[in-house]
Amino acid sequence: MDSGFELKKTDQRCHTARSGVLTTPHGQIETPVFMPVGTSASVKGVLPDRLDQIGAQIMLSNTFHLYLRPGHERIAGFGGLHDYMSWDKPILTDSGGFQVFSLSRMNKISDDGVEFQSPLDGSTHFFTPEKTADIQAALGSDIAMVFDECAPPQSDRPYIRESIDRTYEWAKRFHRYHSHRDQMVFGIVQGGVYPDLRKESAAQITSIPFDGYAVGGLSVGEPFEISMEVLAETTPELPEEKPRYLMGVGTPEMLFGGVERGIDMFDCVLPTRSARHATLYTGSGKLRLKAARHKDSKEPVEEVCDCYTCRHFSRGYLHHLYKRGELSALILGSIHNLRFLMRLMENIRESIAENRFTAFKEEFFSNYQ
Amino acid sequence: MDSGFELKKTDQRCHTARSGVLTTPHGQIETPVFMPVGTSASVKGVLPDRLDQIGAQIMLSNTFHLYLRPGHERIAGFGGLHDYMSWDKPILTDSGGFQVFSLSRMNKISDDGVEFQSPLDGSTHFFTPEKTADIQAALGSDIAMVFDECAPPQSDRPYIRESIDRTYEWAKRFHRYHSHRDQMVFGIVQGGVYPDLRKESAAQITSIPFDGYAVGGLSVGEPFEISMEVLAETTPELPEEKPRYLMGVGTPEMLFGGVERGIDMFDCVLPTRSARHATLYTGSGKLRLKAARHKDSKEPVEEVCDCYTCRHFSRGYLHHLYKRGELSALILGSIHNLRFLMRLMENIRESIAENRFTAFKEEFFSNYQ
Repeated sequence: MDSGFELKKTDQRCHTARSGVLTTPHGQIETPVFMPVGTSASVKGVLPDRLDQIGAQIMLSNTFHLYLRPGHERIAGFGGLHDYMSWDKPILTDSGGFQVFSLSRMNKISDDGVEFQSPLDGSTHFFTPEKTADIQAALGSDIAMVFDECAPPQSDRPYIRESIDRTYEWAKRFHRYHSHRDQMVFGIVQGGVYPDLRKESAAQITSIPFDGYAVGGLSVGEPFEISMEVLAETTPELPEEKPRYLMGVGTPEMLFGGVERGIDMFDCVLPTRSARHATLYTGSGKLRLKAARHKDSKEPVEEVCDCYTCRHFSRGYLHHLYKRGELSALILGSIHNLRFLMRLMENIRESIAENRFTAFKEEFFSNYQ
Repeated sequence: MDSGFELKKTDQRCHTARSGVLTTPHGQIETPVFMPVGTSASVKGVLPDRLDQIGAQIMLSNTFHLYLRPGHERIAGFGGLHDYMSWDKPILTDSGGFQVFSLSRMNKISDDGVEFQSPLDGSTHFFTPEKTADIQAALGSDIAMVFDECAPPQSDRPYIRESIDRTYEWAKRFHRYHSHRDQMVFGIVQGGVYPDLRKESAAQITSIPFDGYAVGGLSVGEPFEISMEVLAETTPELPEEKPRYLMGVGTPEMLFGGVERGIDMFDCVLPTRSARHATLYTGSGKLRLKAARHKDSKEPVEEVCDCYTCRHFSRGYLHHLYKRGELSALILGSIHNLRFLMRLMENIRESIAENRFTAFKEEFFSNYQ
């Protein structure tokens, strides 16, 4: 079973929406797919067996966090991330680029790499493309992401211009250096909200034969319409036969909008984070479980949902657990929110198979607020 | 299947250690049994399906907490506690006595009942035997506990004397008032650390034909040896053909010590609370998972344990999760600690069946520190 992507189907009415199968060293993934995030080698509150029941096909974990704690070499000593966290399905690791630029105090960006301070203890670290390739090889993820510069959303055009060139140089170095045979590598297109710079970055990055291509630095503060416009200008520049990954997004709007513009993969921390804040997803919008009106509700969160939470518990019970600060509320909420997105992606895949993606999207948003 | 207790076996060498079957409206329980505690209608971090996998036969829930939030009438509106929390095995509810005396500001104890203030909002409430019978009937537990006065451990003898008489009057009233046919009721023996008062209380309480008898107010601060001495003086006063429950204890020392003195049932919040504080149980003693020495340990918490945690994860991984404050650590730790006690009770039952309880106890403590 060689690693690679097979484009299976495009919707006959919405020609950009597509489905496929991504084959990785740890198994196959049906796309479009949503990837739950286990930042520190654990999806918060949802153990691997539950994640499997929920229908998760692949998990994302964060290179930046794992590098700092417990350390990639330590994880390698445990036989890699799969063994360490007891997850035998595919894993994608990001490159740490986004976190270096968003979570840590940066000391210096140079063409060589980035010097930054650990948000945990203030210690100084230096990331280069080669370094993050080594870290991800040690983690043993199925898919590694190249180290990119994720410029702040408020950056001016000259800065973005400079940064896509640096991202291109880093991508070339990453690709040249990467030698882990059992690991796929995806390049990342940057370019802020400038369609022409996105196109230029796409041309640069796709000139390198990566196993897939990601769109980074979108939906980082700009209006939804802008994200979608930029995305619509970017995906046509990516090769059809390779998987396309829109990084860090997971709202229904972004998932439908992404698939509509040819995206195959998504990830987001929001489903579990929202669940920890008592906000649960439903087909008619978000449900805030702490609201007093749920106290006596015998309804499940969603009648149509097949998750453990919806099959066994009422909104009234969840309201009680959330109000009491019970640990079980966080678990039950996380299970539901993840399953909600898994079901949504299953339905999206089915709609593409039946050439009714656009109709399904319209139907979905006619209920969703 | 009528509710009741069947004494199956006494150990032929340690004649006081015994095993039996307790039949309740929601099924049978093999004794001696340890009951996990779900204070607010949820065992913290361990969902019902997991609790079932762990081998829990019965869950304890707290009348005092449920009365305050979400309210027993609300729970009755959901069809009772079993439906509310989706647990179809037996449930025992305590009477609220212990919590009224330990968790709330008491305003007044009279022969009629106790006036207290809610620790949640300072509101004033009044518990009487009749009131807690009504609450527990509304909750629909399989086993209700009579409302007793749990005198503070530092009480002097004259006060304890007075309090056992009040407990007796309350027990008579509870028994007279209780009319919920599908609910068993257990009386509670008090008497502090005074063997003669314990005997007197036992004579009083056992004069009422309850379905079982509990020993309350032990192991509340006095030395272990004193608890055991008092217990040894008390259990012979309880009828052999009824189940005996030692309230609120769950350390291996207390479990072995209790079974050795004729106890059939135990409960304790410690296994899940300890797990939330990174302290896990093993046959050789407590393991503090945050200690740096576990960082690289590939060992499971316990080689012999069959729980989900021990089957899938290393001490090193758990160390990482605990250090990072990951929700999954609390879940994995709670699963293990509960399973540890379930296995311990399984082994105790087996040892009684094979007339080697004392040998098993000695073997256990030769490893345990």
